[in-house]
Order: sequence, then structure tokens, then C-alpha cells
Amino acid sequence: MNEEPSRGFSLERIAFFSDAVFAIAITLLVIDLRVPELVEDASDATLQAALEALLPRVFGYLLSFFVIGLYWLAHWRRFHYIVRSNEGFAAINLLLLGCIAFIPFPTALLGEHGDRAVPVVIYVLSLSAAGIVGTVSWLYAARTGLVIDPLPAPEIRVAGLRGLIVPAVMLSSLVVIPFLGPHVAELLWILILPVHLVFTRLATRFLGVVD
Amino acid sequence: MNEEPSRGFSLERIAFFSDAVFAIAITLLVIDLRVPELVEDASDATLQAALEALLPRVFGYLLSFFVIGLYWLAHWRRFHYIVRSNEGFAAINLLLLGCIAFIPFPTALLGEHGDRAVPVVIYVLSLSAAGIVGTVSWLYAARTGLVIDPLPAPEIRVAGLRGLIVPAVMLSSLVVIPFLGPHVAELLWILILPVHLVFTRLATRFLGVVD
Amino acid sequence: MNEEPSRGFSLERIAFFSDAVFAIAITLLVIDLRVPELVEDASDATLQAALEALLPRVFGYLLSFFVIGLYWLAHWRRFHYIVRSNEGFAAINLLLLGCIAFIPFPTALLGEHGDRAVPVVIYVLSLSAAGIVGTVSWLYAARTGLVIDPLPAPEIRVAGLRGLIVPAVMLSSLVVIPFLGPHVAELLWILILPVHLVFTRLATRFLGVVD
Amino acid sequence: MNEEPSRGFSLERIAFFSDAVFAIAITLLVIDLRVPELVEDASDATLQAALEALLPRVFGYLLSFFVIGLYWLAHWRRFHYIVRSNEGFAAINLLLLGCIAFIPFPTALLGEHGDRAVPVVIYVLSLSAAGIVGTVSWLYAARTGLVIDPLPAPEIRVAGLRGLIVPAVMLSSLVVIPFLGPHVAELLWILILPVHLVFTRLATRFLGVVD
Repeated sequence: MNEEPSRGFSLERIAFFSDAVFAIAITLLVIDLRVPELVEDASDATLQAALEALLPRVFGYLLSFFVIGLYWLAHWRRFHYIVRSNEGFAAINLLLLGCIAFIPFPTALLGEHGDRAVPVVIYVLSLSAAGIVGTVSWLYAARTGLVIDPLPAPEIRVAGLRGLIVPAVMLSSLVVIPFLGPHVAELLWILILPVHLVFTRLATRFLGVVD
Repeated sequence: MNEEPSRGFSLERIAFFSDAVFAIAITLLVIDLRVPELVEDASDATLQAALEALLPRVFGYLLSFFVIGLYWLAHWRRFHYIVRSNEGFAAINLLLLGCIAFIPFPTALLGEHGDRAVPVVIYVLSLSAAGIVGTVSWLYAARTGLVIDPLPAPEIRVAGLRGLIVPAVMLSSLVVIPFLGPHVAELLWILILPVHLVFTRLATRFLGVVD
Repeated sequence: MNEEPSRGFSLERIAFFSDAVFAIAITLLVIDLRVPELVEDASDATLQAALEALLPRVFGYLLSFFVIGLYWLAHWRRFHYIVRSNEGFAAINLLLLGCIAFIPFPTALLGEHGDRAVPVVIYVLSLSAAGIVGTVSWLYAARTGLVIDPLPAPEIRVAGLRGLIVPAVMLSSLVVIPFLGPHVAELLWILILPVHLVFTRLATRFLGVVD
Repeated sequence: MNEEPSRGFSLERIAFFSDAVFAIAITLLVIDLRVPELVEDASDATLQAALEALLPRVFGYLLSFFVIGLYWLAHWRRFHYIVRSNEGFAAINLLLLGCIAFIPFPTALLGEHGDRAVPVVIYVLSLSAAGIVGTVSWLYAARTGLVIDPLPAPEIRVAGLRGLIVPAVMLSSLVVIPFLGPHVAELLWILILPVHLVFTRLATRFLGVVD
């Protein structure tokens, strides 16, 4: 009896393996929020001060959670249209997962030394790399015929462009560091959310993409 | 050949991604149970005392495991009735996972400083947030037509209400802290279990909901 | 249009959620193998001594990996025959996962203080609890009609008994601690493997169970 | 009503359990990249020096990520052809997962003490063990009829041989340690990539294996 290799199962494994890596990366972020250790008879004010000193790390946790969440949503959205896999796609997807799994480190670095330029640059480069590799994986899938057929062309362009919003905003923010310092750069990252919303609205109106 | 986007697979990925985050959060809790380090020739009594000093953390582990377990059961139960997904639901679900993934931190805080008010308040707010966002995700799914059709209306109300039992008990317990201290508040959390059981029995009797 | 709740998917989620918890527990074990930190100009002999001092932890890692592996195999085997789920089964399975997720702590305790009685007792009780709850979940599934029908009766008894081998050997080993010390008790655990093999052979011969 | 044990589901669980272990092992690697702690008023140069001191660990992270990634790809590729499972295969696969889950420890050891011979040897033996057990699992599956039928014979030989490239290169590199030191051995590991590419090209040309 002839049996076909289970190609659909292969694609499913790539998706679930990715889900597991995303889930672990997103959960490991919290490990960096270490509980302050105090002497036995420390006052409540001491504890409160120690907790407030954790706030930059909480900010880092929230930010990285938000970005990894966006990336997972993008990954999930891309897989609506991907219906086949090949070795090249599996390899590029692994590269993407390597970038995602790395994020807890620059997040911890930012939480500890977010007032200096070098950690901010490392953080921006790490998160941007993940966004760019994600877009590359989508373009590769579209080029090598792994997506549903026919895929409306605007869909490809929009999905590619949306994946680049985080890298675009973050990399641009680096420009201000020499003049205004790392904190202003970090503030600029808040733009990721409105840019996303505006972009989605424009894409829906002009390209007819229903998200 | 026209191919449909694999919408069923999308829902499955949301469920499995959620399972992975729940699983990691529930397993990371144990990391806070650090093995006491003793000097080489410490007596058995010293070890026993060090282990007994771990008991508040073990209490925290059990409590958080119980609550995350309840939340996973609620999530699993909701997905009996959810048969479609959309981007908004995926986003609210991500928010829920962010709350779940955060729980190991307030758990560790409670284990270390459970005799003070601030950690108890942070713990209650964190766990309540997860319960409330879970209920919101269910209401959103019901409103935007992601659930089986027809869904018996009591089912919606009951599922929504049950998800609010943990937040209701925990938030109420905060009231006693200024008068009776954090330990009494913690004791009140034991009410979660009987309230759950009574609620399920009443729902079955009066609304005809078979669980 | 009437739609059925997706009951098969519910069972699948229990299985995959369990897999995730097993996978994390089995992988967290290695975290306890901390790399020795040495002064810059330490000799190779110092490093080798530090690595040799890690051997009890490596023993703990291997043992717990072996036992969690056996438990996963047992879980996987049970799910060959379980074709439905209900809330009670999901809850008992959660309790089992709580036991599994706890194992890294007694493993670390054994690795650090394996020459004392109390850690050995805690280790034995933790691992035995997981084995016993696993068996209870199987009996519950068989009683409440969640298994394939007809399930050959010997299958139930055998699966139940096999799950009890680890608890039986481990709990019995506790008897020797007052007389021969914890190390002899630990040595007795090696019996788990031959008892398993003999049991499987006997079950195959007398009950006609093909594994 | 007679119901068949769900054998396809069993294979799926082995695959997803493996994915979870691979995902956690690959993500835990980053935990070893600890953020340098500095005094409050440390200069930027101090931070940069501390980050540069992390580079050997980053090298270890990248290398182990690359090798675990290769192993996951090999596992994924093997499951294209595996369509059934049995207890023996599940057990060998568990052994493979034990090797994979262990890798974060030798990786951390290499990152901390990569300039000494013993850590390099431990690293090589750990990663080679995983590669060899993976190949054994494939041969076992092919021998006991778990693969698609007919499986073109070259496919078996090629998949077996390719799994051995990492062990072959790494174990060979050990030969140079007594003469040229551990750093030259580590440099030789770069050969893994070109050997892989040449091997794949040769296999395609002479055996007609389309990857």
C-alpha cells in the first residue's frame, strides 16, 4: 500500500512548535521580576520602595509582552494563508524563533540599565530582527507557493508591511538618542500602537483588505 | 484552485498557545521553591527548620496552582462552545495570557512577604485581573458570534458569572485587611471552593445548566 | 443551524496541556544543574572536583527524568483508550499535573541533601503521589465511561497496577531508612526497572495483554 | 459499539510532546545570559566591558540554538515518513528528549569555561549523544514498520547518515584538543554547516533524494 508523507501534519508541527517557543519566551519575561529580599524587620516603606524600584522592569515586561504578542498575532495571521511547508520555510521560521527566544535577555538588560544608550540599542536591534525575519518568512512562503491560491496580491504587501511597523518605529527612535537620550527614544515606542491602528484602517480602506 | 483560509486551525492555535502559556505559568511557580543551602555539618533540625520556613511559599504554590487550574478549566470549558475566532478575540485572549503569565511574580511576592498588606493587594489584583479578562473574552466571543448557535442564553450568563467568583471573593477579602490584617484576608480565600460548588449546584437547579 | 460542542477537541486539549506540563517539568530539572563558578586562575583539577561535586544532582536529574518519563508513557498509554472527557476527569488530570509540576523541587532537594532522611522521604512522597493520582484518573475514566467500549477488563486492572509500581517500590524503600540509611533506600529504587519488565512480561503471558 | 484505540492521536502526541521539549530546551538557553549587575555610578565603558565579557556565552547560545534547531529539523523531517507509533519508539524518543533537555547545562558550562578541555569534551559528548539517539530512533522506526510503505531505501540511509554529521564533526574535533587546545576544536565545529550542505547536494545528485 502506498502512503503519502503527512505534509499537512508537517505544517501543523511548525505552527505548534512556534506557539511553544512564543509561549515560553513570553512567560520567561516574568522571571526577571525578582522579589526583593528584605531584612526581617524592614518597614513597609522599605518594601514599597523596593517594589517601586522594580517598576522599570515591569515596564520592560509589559513592553516585551506587547511586542511578542504582536509578533505572535502576526505569525498566527500569516498561517491563515499558509497551507504547505518546505524545508526552507521551516529553517527561516527557526531563525525567527531564535530571535523570539532571545528577547528575554535584552528585556532584562533594558529593565536593569534602561537609562543608558547601549542596552536600548541592543533591545531595538533584537526586537527589530524578529520583526524583519518574520516578514522575510512571509515573503518566502508567498514566493515559493506555500500560500493559498489565489492569494489576493494586496494581502501579501499589507502583511509584509505590517510586520515592519515595529522595526520601523524602533529603529527610527535610535536617531534621537545622541540628542535627547535613551528615555525619549523609549517614549517614542508608544507610537507603535497608533501607527498600527492607522495602518490597518488605511489598508482596509484603500486596498480592500478585511482583517 | 481556490483554497479557503484554514479558520478552524486558527482557533486550534489560540487554544494550544493558551495551553502552553498556562502550562508554563503553572510550572514556573515551583521555581520559587528554592532548596535551602546549608553549611556542610548542619544538623537535621536545621534542615527541618529551613524546610518549615518554606511552608508559606508552598502555600503560595498550592494556592496559585489551584487558581490557575480553575482558570484553565474555565478556559477549556469556554472553548467547548467557541467554534470560530477573529482578531479581536485573539487579542483579548493574549491579554488574558499576559495576566496568567504574570502570576508567578505576585505568587513569589506573597510567599516571601505574605504577612504584609501590599503584597496581598498586588496578589489579589493580579489574580482578579486574569479572572475578569477571561470573563470579558467569553462575553466578546458570545457577542461577536464566535460561539455555537444557538447557545442557550443561561449558558452565557452562568459562564460569565462563574469566571467572576475568584475575583469577587478575593477583592472582597481586601476589605478586612485594615481591620484584621493580611492573614485573615488570605484565610477568606478558602471560600473560593465552597462558593464554586454552591454556585454550580444552584446553576444546575435553577437554570438547567448541566455542567 | 445547530452546532455540537466540540467534545473531541476538549479531550485533545487535556492531552496537549498535559504534554506541555510534562515537557516543562522534565526540562526544568536541568536548571538545578548550576555551572560551578571558579576564580579566574583555578586549576583544571579544581574544575574537575567542582564537576564531580555535581554528580549527585546529575543522579537526581536522571532519576526524575526517568520517573517523569515513565509517567508520561503511562499517561500517553492511557489516552489510547480514553475517547471522551468530562469536567471531573479534567480536574483529576489537573491534580496529576500539579504533582508532576512539583517534582523539580524535591529533585533539587534530593540533589542537594540526598544523604539525609527528610529529603528522601519528601522525594518519595512527591513521586508516589503523582503515580497514585495517575492511577486514580485512569480508574475514574474507566468508571465514568470515558474509555473505548468494550474495554477488555484486564486492560483496566493492568494499567492501574502498572501505574502503582513506582509508588510501591519507592514507598517500600522508606522502611529501610531507619536501619540502613537513605543511601540504601535510594539504591532500592533501581528495582523499578526490573519490576516493570517482569510485570509487563507476566501481564502479557497471563492476561493476554499485548502492550 | 466497538471503538478503535486512537493510534493516530498517539503519534501526534509524541510529536507535540517532542516539540514542547525542544521548544523549552531552545528557550532555556537564554537564561544563562545573565544581565551584568553594576554599581550605581558605573561608567558606560564598564557596562560595555561587562557586555563584551558575555560574548562567549552568546557564542554558546548561538551554537546550541543552531544545533538544537538542526536536530528539531531532523526530527520534523523524520516524522514526514513516520505514520505509526509503538511503545518502543515512544521510549527511544523519550531518551532523545532527555538528551535535548540536558543541552542547556553543557551550553552554560561551555559559556563559562570554554577555554578548558573538560567542558568542551562534556559539550561534545552531550550534543553527539542527542544526534546518535535521534538516528537510532529513525532506524528503529524503519525496522519495526512505523514508516510509510514503501519507503525508498536511500531515504533511510540518507536520513540516518545526515543525523550523524553533527556527532561526526564534533567527536572528530576532540582529537585536536591535546595538540592545539579547546579553541581550535571549537573553531572546527563551523564545519558542520558546509558538511551539511555538501552532503545534501551529494545525496540529491547520487541517490535522487529530493529534500
